[in-house]
Amino acid sequence: MGGELEPQRIVRLEDDAVVVLDQRRLPSEEVDLRCASASAVAEAIRTLAVRGAPAIGIAAAYGLALAAERGEDLETAYETLAASRPTAVNLRWALEAMRDDPSRERAERIHADEVARCRAMGAHALELFPEGARVLTHCNAGGLATGGYGTALGAIRAAYEAARIEHVWVDETRPLLQGARLTAWELEQLGIPHAVIVDGAAASLMARGEVDLVVTGADRIAANGDTANKIGTYALAVSAAHHGLPLVIVAPTSTLDPTASTGAEIPIEERDPAEVTARFAARNPAFDVTPADLVAAIVTERGVHRVPYAETLPREAAAAR
Amino acid sequence: MGGELEPQRIVRLEDDAVVVLDQRRLPSEEVDLRCASASAVAEAIRTLAVRGAPAIGIAAAYGLALAAERGEDLETAYETLAASRPTAVNLRWALEAMRDDPSRERAERIHADEVARCRAMGAHALELFPEGARVLTHCNAGGLATGGYGTALGAIRAAYEAARIEHVWVDETRPLLQGARLTAWELEQLGIPHAVIVDGAAASLMARGEVDLVVTGADRIAANGDTANKIGTYALAVSAAHHGLPLVIVAPTSTLDPTASTGAEIPIEERDPAEVTARFAARNPAFDVTPADLVAAIVTERGVHRVPYAETLPREAAAAR
Repeated sequence: MGGELEPQRIVRLEDDAVVVLDQRRLPSEEVDLRCASASAVAEAIRTLAVRGAPAIGIAAAYGLALAAERGEDLETAYETLAASRPTAVNLRWALEAMRDDPSRERAERIHADEVARCRAMGAHALELFPEGARVLTHCNAGGLATGGYGTALGAIRAAYEAARIEHVWVDETRPLLQGARLTAWELEQLGIPHAVIVDGAAASLMARGEVDLVVTGADRIAANGDTANKIGTYALAVSAAHHGLPLVIVAPTSTLDPTASTGAEIPIEERDPAEVTARFAARNPAFDVTPADLVAAIVTERGVHRVPYAETLPREAAAAR
Repeated sequence: MGGELEPQRIVRLEDDAVVVLDQRRLPSEEVDLRCASASAVAEAIRTLAVRGAPAIGIAAAYGLALAAERGEDLETAYETLAASRPTAVNLRWALEAMRDDPSRERAERIHADEVARCRAMGAHALELFPEGARVLTHCNAGGLATGGYGTALGAIRAAYEAARIEHVWVDETRPLLQGARLTAWELEQLGIPHAVIVDGAAASLMARGEVDLVVTGADRIAANGDTANKIGTYALAVSAAHHGLPLVIVAPTSTLDPTASTGAEIPIEERDPAEVTARFAARNPAFDVTPADLVAAIVTERGVHRVPYAETLPREAAAAR
């Protein structure tokens, strides 16, 4: 049922190169980018040919394994890869995990673990999808971002495989259009019925009774459940609450940040205003924070959390470390 | 105080042509389009070189006056102009008003009346703006759309002239970006401080306390105050209500539709999905309906209306006819 989107298609290690599906050229072209050295992998990460925190970590792990097989200097390879996206936590984590055993097998295990973690999230999230669900999602929390299966989109995929999905509404997700470019492409690959909408149309579809639940990923989750995610998520949360619809966050435990007690402690990246408009003054906050009381459930690979989040999230974050 | 944006710059009748500022080429180029016949004016309307219901009506009136001066067949000119945007009520109305007196003076009076109506709305709306207001607006309800001063943007302009505006947030307004292209350009002309944001960022700015009120125009207002306007307005209304902020609608009495008792009777135009994305399935509702209980005030050229709208709007609509 449905189409395919194999993890190896998104990122893999061949004999002489790390091969990534170039996300900059989707959806108009499906082009493999061959990276024949650790520094070529770093360049692919830096230029967003591969994006999404878990996918970056996997690509970097393969890059280090490639460097080891080619006899490159491993300390140099490590530093080059680590510097490619300085703020990406998964990148550091994956490289650290490769330190003692920079082998192809270790990198493949990191990749397989990531896919398994996403499949576990999908299994846990299933109970939150009603039969015939019309789901709305934002940005891209799919196989492209995670190296295989996806968090929010993985949950939608699992629910579709369990015959619970009627339709997926895809917020185009301005300014960078990850929804219209990447999420719609993934859903097309998987054969899941979908339609792209402008971000401003979501509330109106809810008012017309055409949405049953909202599912998104997360960039960072505070101890109390406040969730930072792509700009526009908070607007969806407010609209969902207004219409009595659940907002479900699907994210790995690595996203939990018990050092932030609430969302107020999560810094918001402001990106180049030219992403919005090159012609006029603009403001371009890349993320927003959705307060926990607007979040119906937070699903990790370890289970489903509900209010009060502060009772279970910090414990889970500690257990996962 | 502030810059200029003269009504004549947007649309005017010269000796041998109706001249419109070509809105398709804004903001990158400011180009006059000279229409030397009624059919050239109709073409300018049809191709959206001039857009916005009142501006279309004014251009058509000038087109008929030009046809009369040139000795064109007036019935043909009338029909050509009327067919250029078949659903535009103002277009029909302006042409009808020219029937008995298709003169240059009559067309100029229609134009001047429209500007005066907008100025009256601005004066009435002033009481709704606090000192140092940080206003958020959506789409373009400005001088470009109205042939001179603007409805929502006219109210912002009047409030700025009264030193009540600190900053204007401009929703870019996907899919056609009227905010990022036209509203930002007008505010720049007028010297009013502003920044463009993606539509999904508005709720987040409200949560951070950076918005005091939301002001938009309207396409059609039902007898009970339910307001149809550009897609995304309803999402703003829900977010404004959630944050305790007023949403103010500024629109002429010609927008009132007493034959629709509620918004459920207002049909919603679905436009070409290719406006959203040419590559994937998409839905593209062009408007949404904001229920009256989310609208703090409706300002027309005759005054400020508040809940319960059904008591005053139908009477005003009748008086204006």
